[in-house]
Amino acid sequence: MVLTLPVSTPIATQTGELVRHYDRVRADSEFLCEPLEVEDFLIQPMDDASPTKWHLAHTTWFFETFLLERYAPDFRPFHPRFKYLFNSYYNSVGEMHKRPLRGLLSRPTVAEVMAYRHHVDDAMRRLLRSGDEVDGEMAELITTGLHHEKQHQELILTDIKSVFGANPLRPAYRTDLAERPQRYVEEMRWIGHSGGLVNLGRDRDPDTFAFDNETPRHRVHLEPFEMSHRLVTCGEFIQFIEDGGYDKATLWLSDGWSARNNHGWTAPLYWEQNDGEWHHLTLGGLERVRPEEPVCHVSFYEADAFARWAGARLPLESEWEVMATALTESPKSADKEIRFAANLRDRDRLHPSMPEDLEAHVQQLFGDVWEWTSSPYTPYPGYRPLEGPLGEYNGKFMCNQMILRGGSCVTPRDHLRVTYRNFWSPETRFQFSGFRLARHTESRKDG
Amino acid sequence: MVLTLPVSTPIATQTGELVRHYDRVRADSEFLCEPLEVEDFLIQPMDDASPTKWHLAHTTWFFETFLLERYAPDFRPFHPRFKYLFNSYYNSVGEMHKRPLRGLLSRPTVAEVMAYRHHVDDAMRRLLRSGDEVDGEMAELITTGLHHEKQHQELILTDIKSVFGANPLRPAYRTDLAERPQRYVEEMRWIGHSGGLVNLGRDRDPDTFAFDNETPRHRVHLEPFEMSHRLVTCGEFIQFIEDGGYDKATLWLSDGWSARNNHGWTAPLYWEQNDGEWHHLTLGGLERVRPEEPVCHVSFYEADAFARWAGARLPLESEWEVMATALTESPKSADKEIRFAANLRDRDRLHPSMPEDLEAHVQQLFGDVWEWTSSPYTPYPGYRPLEGPLGEYNGKFMCNQMILRGGSCVTPRDHLRVTYRNFWSPETRFQFSGFRLARHTESRKDG
Amino acid sequence: MVLTLPVSTPIATQTGELVRHYDRVRADSEFLCEPLEVEDFLIQPMDDASPTKWHLAHTTWFFETFLLERYAPDFRPFHPRFKYLFNSYYNSVGEMHKRPLRGLLSRPTVAEVMAYRHHVDDAMRRLLRSGDEVDGEMAELITTGLHHEKQHQELILTDIKSVFGANPLRPAYRTDLAERPQRYVEEMRWIGHSGGLVNLGRDRDPDTFAFDNETPRHRVHLEPFEMSHRLVTCGEFIQFIEDGGYDKATLWLSDGWSARNNHGWTAPLYWEQNDGEWHHLTLGGLERVRPEEPVCHVSFYEADAFARWAGARLPLESEWEVMATALTESPKSADKEIRFAANLRDRDRLHPSMPEDLEAHVQQLFGDVWEWTSSPYTPYPGYRPLEGPLGEYNGKFMCNQMILRGGSCVTPRDHLRVTYRNFWSPETRFQFSGFRLARHTESRKDG
Amino acid sequence: MVLTLPVSTPIATQTGELVRHYDRVRADSEFLCEPLEVEDFLIQPMDDASPTKWHLAHTTWFFETFLLERYAPDFRPFHPRFKYLFNSYYNSVGEMHKRPLRGLLSRPTVAEVMAYRHHVDDAMRRLLRSGDEVDGEMAELITTGLHHEKQHQELILTDIKSVFGANPLRPAYRTDLAERPQRYVEEMRWIGHSGGLVNLGRDRDPDTFAFDNETPRHRVHLEPFEMSHRLVTCGEFIQFIEDGGYDKATLWLSDGWSARNNHGWTAPLYWEQNDGEWHHLTLGGLERVRPEEPVCHVSFYEADAFARWAGARLPLESEWEVMATALTESPKSADKEIRFAANLRDRDRLHPSMPEDLEAHVQQLFGDVWEWTSSPYTPYPGYRPLEGPLGEYNGKFMCNQMILRGGSCVTPRDHLRVTYRNFWSPETRFQFSGFRLARHTESRKDG
Repeated sequence: MVLTLPVSTPIATQTGELVRHYDRVRADSEFLCEPLEVEDFLIQPMDDASPTKWHLAHTTWFFETFLLERYAPDFRPFHPRFKYLFNSYYNSVGEMHKRPLRGLLSRPTVAEVMAYRHHVDDAMRRLLRSGDEVDGEMAELITTGLHHEKQHQELILTDIKSVFGANPLRPAYRTDLAERPQRYVEEMRWIGHSGGLVNLGRDRDPDTFAFDNETPRHRVHLEPFEMSHRLVTCGEFIQFIEDGGYDKATLWLSDGWSARNNHGWTAPLYWEQNDGEWHHLTLGGLERVRPEEPVCHVSFYEADAFARWAGARLPLESEWEVMATALTESPKSADKEIRFAANLRDRDRLHPSMPEDLEAHVQQLFGDVWEWTSSPYTPYPGYRPLEGPLGEYNGKFMCNQMILRGGSCVTPRDHLRVTYRNFWSPETRFQFSGFRLARHTESRKDG
Repeated sequence: MVLTLPVSTPIATQTGELVRHYDRVRADSEFLCEPLEVEDFLIQPMDDASPTKWHLAHTTWFFETFLLERYAPDFRPFHPRFKYLFNSYYNSVGEMHKRPLRGLLSRPTVAEVMAYRHHVDDAMRRLLRSGDEVDGEMAELITTGLHHEKQHQELILTDIKSVFGANPLRPAYRTDLAERPQRYVEEMRWIGHSGGLVNLGRDRDPDTFAFDNETPRHRVHLEPFEMSHRLVTCGEFIQFIEDGGYDKATLWLSDGWSARNNHGWTAPLYWEQNDGEWHHLTLGGLERVRPEEPVCHVSFYEADAFARWAGARLPLESEWEVMATALTESPKSADKEIRFAANLRDRDRLHPSMPEDLEAHVQQLFGDVWEWTSSPYTPYPGYRPLEGPLGEYNGKFMCNQMILRGGSCVTPRDHLRVTYRNFWSPETRFQFSGFRLARHTESRKDG
Repeated sequence: MVLTLPVSTPIATQTGELVRHYDRVRADSEFLCEPLEVEDFLIQPMDDASPTKWHLAHTTWFFETFLLERYAPDFRPFHPRFKYLFNSYYNSVGEMHKRPLRGLLSRPTVAEVMAYRHHVDDAMRRLLRSGDEVDGEMAELITTGLHHEKQHQELILTDIKSVFGANPLRPAYRTDLAERPQRYVEEMRWIGHSGGLVNLGRDRDPDTFAFDNETPRHRVHLEPFEMSHRLVTCGEFIQFIEDGGYDKATLWLSDGWSARNNHGWTAPLYWEQNDGEWHHLTLGGLERVRPEEPVCHVSFYEADAFARWAGARLPLESEWEVMATALTESPKSADKEIRFAANLRDRDRLHPSMPEDLEAHVQQLFGDVWEWTSSPYTPYPGYRPLEGPLGEYNGKFMCNQMILRGGSCVTPRDHLRVTYRNFWSPETRFQFSGFRLARHTESRKDG
Repeated sequence: MVLTLPVSTPIATQTGELVRHYDRVRADSEFLCEPLEVEDFLIQPMDDASPTKWHLAHTTWFFETFLLERYAPDFRPFHPRFKYLFNSYYNSVGEMHKRPLRGLLSRPTVAEVMAYRHHVDDAMRRLLRSGDEVDGEMAELITTGLHHEKQHQELILTDIKSVFGANPLRPAYRTDLAERPQRYVEEMRWIGHSGGLVNLGRDRDPDTFAFDNETPRHRVHLEPFEMSHRLVTCGEFIQFIEDGGYDKATLWLSDGWSARNNHGWTAPLYWEQNDGEWHHLTLGGLERVRPEEPVCHVSFYEADAFARWAGARLPLESEWEVMATALTESPKSADKEIRFAANLRDRDRLHPSMPEDLEAHVQQLFGDVWEWTSSPYTPYPGYRPLEGPLGEYNGKFMCNQMILRGGSCVTPRDHLRVTYRNFWSPETRFQFSGFRLARHTESRKDG
């Protein structure tokens, strides 16, 4: 199966196309919830994770607040308090329910949240269908709202996994997931790059969608480096564990060592040892760990400690992007789309798996796991947040977070781009986060 | 309407009677849940409150663990992990799920918990019907399990109130509650007692049920005292608020003042001021506070501060019991049952109301609100906890708790007795807790 | 050596006597500090313990605030901010420095605090010497201030022990303490009492000093009981440890078990095992534990768990007082003073030791260790706190604390009385706290 | 007065020179303590600050552990437990006393710590004087130890300020500090830079000292930018306060807004409003804020919020370094030293002051305040930490910290270099931290 990844995401202004996109994304969110019991929609096992019900309502709030309130003058809000309950972090929009309290709300019920969704969907469709084309700003806002919802689709999956992970009964989200391939995995190889001045990021463009934090396009100077040809596997990570990696302070960043001590980490999240064998909870239930598959659910600190143990380091986000760009510009991608066998959500495995893009120079750059980089999340030179409330979307988080690249097995295919910057606090483990290695090429010549 | 309160609670050994009792109590728990949405069963808004689902399962676990495991040799547990999930605090029975995590379990679902109940109910009925009569020890255990469940029925109501209280939408549990009377309430009067040696508590008796902490019967010497003829009202409590009672450190116990500061208390729990009027959340929804009704949802500290402000104190539990015993031994109660118009759960108001036992010397001793006393929860002289795991039921909590007496508007009528000792930490506000006043009679002569 | 304990503490009104008392107590506080380095005066190893410097200043603040401000109209405070810095918990006197911050003050220096003491001492002496006699109220206030300072002398010793206990260097307070006797200690015997109505506490009396919480005298009915003839020893406590007492949840009160888990208790405070032998820090330095000496530095919870393990319970404070009163009224005490060999501070051992009052029926009632009772700290019937700010001295702590009786090896002899009620939170271990056992006499006949 | 700043710091290997350097630095530390009372040496007002006594001992421990233990085979440690007590964070050296407990140690006394210093000093001098020259590795270790001590000299001053800041008596460290100039301060001007490829950092060099985190020299591509010609002043910061800057969430990073809320920040640290006038605590005591002086004791978050409010941003560390390098390479600095009037510790003001380097293009780059940059603390490309335990010196902190540049009024002049990278968590306020502004030059042309 060969699939494609968009190099850029067009912003449709044709009503028909927009409505189709809207309907598809909104339906996808509800489709993801089909395997759930009503009870599963409510749980917030930790401050970082939100209940499914909240995700469904918050993504709806987004359209209500940023589209309907602005463009649909006769729009009546579904409930006066939802503005407060389902605002996430937009201070410029008003007061909000405190994040750690999201799991304490039995009402609105799931059915009421669904009614809320459909109320807003009806109003959105009416708004869109009022002409053949919508203006560019509105089209961009809608497209933003849809990509916002795709992000929350990923979170629905990561968060429901944390719900099941907190449950001693170890429930499965689905028992009919697609099989994951099993085959021999090659030894790790190093792929070199000569460094030099490279172009990264992209400029704002009214015709294609990207988040503000991917802009503007700019130049970066790289020293020569090498990157591992594939992701680090569970088997390699078990070697780190068995070599006492979790007990050697000198392998860890200072904050990482504190986190390991505070949380008592001895293995990746969701791992447990039963009868001497490593198992882990997947969205398909409890499984034995397969050594050939990429390690997942590790924090930046664990990835960084592993890299130090292995005599390497994590790649910079610029190193990752330059490698990924090269891939997309290879002859095989000449038609402006990247064809490859990435394990994204549409493969319906919902778990990282072995490389399938075997002809690629550097494999598994897309899909499987979000790859921790060694780059803190900072603005690109000349970065400007969006005007208005959406300026709070990305910019205000540019501190104390690390960049992750490449998408994961729960990322929607049409949500990802080469320039996409994901970011999480270095302690985070509940995302599908793994890593590959990089290292400095010693033979470099300074200019 | 004249109702009665049992002076003692017989332990039936006849199969038929036991099964009827069992069926009635078990059905009552489920009946209380009828107004709830599935979502309402899951929420744990604070460590002290448990989800409805947990109450339904834990009371079932009680019969499984203490009856079926012991007496039904072919009994198969419904699920191997429920022993762990639904143990509350019985260390002698094994490990248990941590209390603050009770609200993080989406599974078992409500339907599965109901199936668990019915599985155990079937087994219990089979066990009971194996003969015409059961032996005394088993009858006592079953009766204990049923009273245990009646306690949890009260908790289902107090805890669901805290679920709705934590929700900015202010949902109502029911909108069809019985009307509460409205009439003139008399000024507070002082009812005197000459003190002296009095008998309190009761001895263990194989034929009637009581908790171990009510035993043994023993003598206490009381100084002469007076007690207010009714409960303190909301109107009186508003005077305390308006006089700055919450801001005068010298009215408060030291720990009370800390609690007030830590929690920012400025009024009873569930009270809010809207447009200059005090409102509070009831199980029937948000209402204006009625000044003639007993104040409720105050901590021991607030009750104690009010009493000091009023130049009085809270009664001792012995003072309360001697007054209540006198009431039950008055001619009107000659037939060994106490007839009175107490506002208990069966009145279906589920909120404290004005006195109706107007012919009583001391009014509102039973029902409406649990009355904070000034007595710490300590063992009676010669107290012995039950043998075996049920020894953990009451005895181990005899520290840092205060005694409350008299039952409340959410207490089942056949659960209460004159000697009944309820106990909560002095900071507790989510129970239906109020108070009356007492004071020392100055003219006493020492012996 | 036979010493005496005052049955009551006279309030002198003669100037000369008052000044002598004043000078002696004030000098004693400074004498206790002689072995200290300047650095030792500052440390606050936990919120409950205060720096020595603070004790020296706070006791001085007491005279400044309650005597000089009221009676010496031309008195000038030593420093305007000391009123704020050295107020402990008297809300009615004004704002105060927060308790946990007492150890963060390098200034005033120790020398400045000493100058503050002498400034106030001079003013106090001038005030006292203005006539031959002072009026009764002032005499009572001064006497209260001196007993207040005696309490803080005890705290200086318990708190400096906690300073040294927090230091890995294990410093000694003094190396020249009096030898403690070593001899055979008898097996524990049970001493019975027939119970009945007894008189406890004392009435207010303008001529003798007592704290308000010891009043008024009142009657209590006791069931027959027995009490161990001596304190529980370290050797007996080691048996409890070796029998797994710290690991058996069913021996512990629920709050006690939480405390044990939160703090990781496995032995009394200051105990450590070196080379398989129990050692503990004393004010004389690190020592091997002597099995014959009373166990000390245990919380109420540990004492209670030991008692349950031993098939007994802790005595009520009324049981303790009735036994102690009997001792003081025995022929040997006919001259209105109690002669006995109690190990109080004046014995200069500063550590509990074996019984020396061997002719006493019940031994070690006074001195060695404060004895935990099973009585929560509550007001006696008819209790009234003092008028004015000193009303905050005792009354506001009457919640969540347990009574201890009998004084310890660091209590000044002229500070103790039979009716003296000490009180601490049940978790407290840094005081010189131990215990004896009691039990219910089974053969009692109810009335 | 014209002073100089070394472009590089030579590593002496000649015994005489090394001993002079050693003696001078060690004496400086003790000289800084002369104004202190014994009591001032002990206080730890927050986890981040250490007692002066600890700094004196820890810098001594450094020489004991890394020099004497390795090179002086007959060296006897002063006290066996000091290895444990005075290790800061070197896991590879062994266990250590927990950081938050540093303020709970009365012993060793200040005198004993001084004796410890002199014991080690004697041994160090013996070690150094055993020949005319020492080998390069040892010379580098000693030089590292001396720069380590210079860092702690700065901390002695920042930490003692926090001790006095925590004291309601507002003590002064010294009352004889040098006068700070007062004159007209120019309006802020923007100084441009055309960007492009620049060289930053430095390579390791056996003859000159630098920390490992300044290496290796590498190239960075910069976009064109502008930088403010001087630091932001108190007067400008007061405008931000008066414009509600502390209350506008949209000006703040998300973590910054949380920090502001958690700590209740409304002004820089040490600021207080008395009678409507801003005052702040300086090392010379409480003063009125002078609007012309640089604002100080602000966190990265406050600096960042101010910059956003002003329509600008904070500079990158690369932008700062390229400007500073240009300054040092200007004709005036031709003799390889930078001559300028920087307000460093040797000016004896110990407080930031108005610019004096008025002929400089960009003023106040050195001294006054450490300047927050927008650069997270990350390794330079090809960075390698030192081998052995000193590898823990810098590298393990490269996460969740921001870079500060330029030294402050409490930095020793011979400790600073153009390439020097200081780093602190973005919440930090107790350092002498201020900032200047930068902005993107819009007219840039992309390549």
